[in-house]
Amino acid sequence: MEKQKLTEQIQKKKSYLCVGLDTDLHKIPKHLLKEKDPVFEFNKQIIDATADFCVAYKPNIAFYEALGPAGWESLNKTLEYIPEEIFTIADAKRGDIGNTSKLYARAFFEKMTFDSITVAPYMGKDSVMPFLEFENKWIIVLAHTSNPGAQDFQVLESDGKPLYESVIKKCIGWANADQLMFVVGATRADKIKEIRSLAPDNFFLVPGVGAQGGDLKAVSEAGLNADGGLLVNSSRGIIYASSERDFGNMARQKAEDLQQEMDKYLNEYV
Amino acid sequence: MEKQKLTEQIQKKKSYLCVGLDTDLHKIPKHLLKEKDPVFEFNKQIIDATADFCVAYKPNIAFYEALGPAGWESLNKTLEYIPEEIFTIADAKRGDIGNTSKLYARAFFEKMTFDSITVAPYMGKDSVMPFLEFENKWIIVLAHTSNPGAQDFQVLESDGKPLYESVIKKCIGWANADQLMFVVGATRADKIKEIRSLAPDNFFLVPGVGAQGGDLKAVSEAGLNADGGLLVNSSRGIIYASSERDFGNMARQKAEDLQQEMDKYLNEYV
Repeated sequence: MEKQKLTEQIQKKKSYLCVGLDTDLHKIPKHLLKEKDPVFEFNKQIIDATADFCVAYKPNIAFYEALGPAGWESLNKTLEYIPEEIFTIADAKRGDIGNTSKLYARAFFEKMTFDSITVAPYMGKDSVMPFLEFENKWIIVLAHTSNPGAQDFQVLESDGKPLYESVIKKCIGWANADQLMFVVGATRADKIKEIRSLAPDNFFLVPGVGAQGGDLKAVSEAGLNADGGLLVNSSRGIIYASSERDFGNMARQKAEDLQQEMDKYLNEYV
Repeated sequence: MEKQKLTEQIQKKKSYLCVGLDTDLHKIPKHLLKEKDPVFEFNKQIIDATADFCVAYKPNIAFYEALGPAGWESLNKTLEYIPEEIFTIADAKRGDIGNTSKLYARAFFEKMTFDSITVAPYMGKDSVMPFLEFENKWIIVLAHTSNPGAQDFQVLESDGKPLYESVIKKCIGWANADQLMFVVGATRADKIKEIRSLAPDNFFLVPGVGAQGGDLKAVSEAGLNADGGLLVNSSRGIIYASSERDFGNMARQKAEDLQQEMDKYLNEYV
């Protein structure tokens, strides 16, 4: 998807919400388990319920991989069901030597037709570049994540700057802002402000609003730019808002609440 | 698999060879393409041909993922076909927040029954720990890889030590040597010597001998320890030794050549 299309959708829907499709058989409403493909059936109803209020869907691939080949079938069906104008993110955190990253790129961009994939930077340039050979496809590089382990290596300072800053600066040299986003955790808004100054033009995928404890107002003030520039993800807070038959309506409500808040921040901070 | 079993196998076979099952439909002998599952058929014949000379098999998961659900079926069948005494490595380079890494662990250790998985360290402790909850299952953490991009971040110095050294030291604090290996590239044997002094007891998975240009003698001298302590991988050099009907025999020959060389180094350096 072109950057312009993503930006237009943010303006049209007055939302920068990404819904995380972290679909877990142990957590979906029990009555769905009798369906032939409960994971897809759940996702379908979540998509129907939330598509008006979000601009992106992000299945975390681990949830599908854990189900074996059937999980990949559910993932494929889900991807095909997502309306074309909505941005899709394979949250896969892949990264390998060049030849192998090329295969991952083919898996997610050709075999499946995701718009983007999350990528781990540890193996460096040749692990990242193969994903950029696909026109209008994006990489979303892990920069500063929101989990406790982010403190182990991402903040180690070298030449006066933390590792995540080196990652951001190098990646900006490898790809331009219409193919490159960063994962930036929402647990500290001052961090987002700092990273926005390093990468003024790039979209940030921000997990951690909701279950991981980020604050949407602070994140939005620190991170929004003229294009929008943020995709704020919520997974559990939306998709598991109810474990009963009303899960679709409840998810819709939670998504709309977030969209309404985002509408306000788009007016205030852009 | 217990460490002792792996070590016994190294002693019995006089080999620390790992065969990389990076099976690519574009590279396998043409006559196999008429088989129902050409990937499995190729792997089966490679395993039959090389099992006497290697102690581990390492499918790189990208090659299977690139084929969609059918690729996962081929991978499963391959895994089941590998003789039980041979160590199996899911070369997947996974890593995510704790909850999600747990799902990857289940995918590779329960749904499939790999002995080990390669793990990317960028997200830190909680991305690594869930894999350690499975008894006699191993993680193989990317430390210093053999690709050009290894120079981008892995060597950045913080407090006088490169990132890969911080990774090794922290990981050794999280897991002991009967569940923790490191990926150490073979392109420079002096690096292996340095890393062996940081991690005297851990096994190293060494890719890069063969196609990526490492030197088996130098690697062995620098890396072998009392348990063996090395798994040296060769993929293309063995499995694509021939693209004709004799590919099994040719693979067997290449594997035996490496095993013979390893036998010598085990006598010389252990």
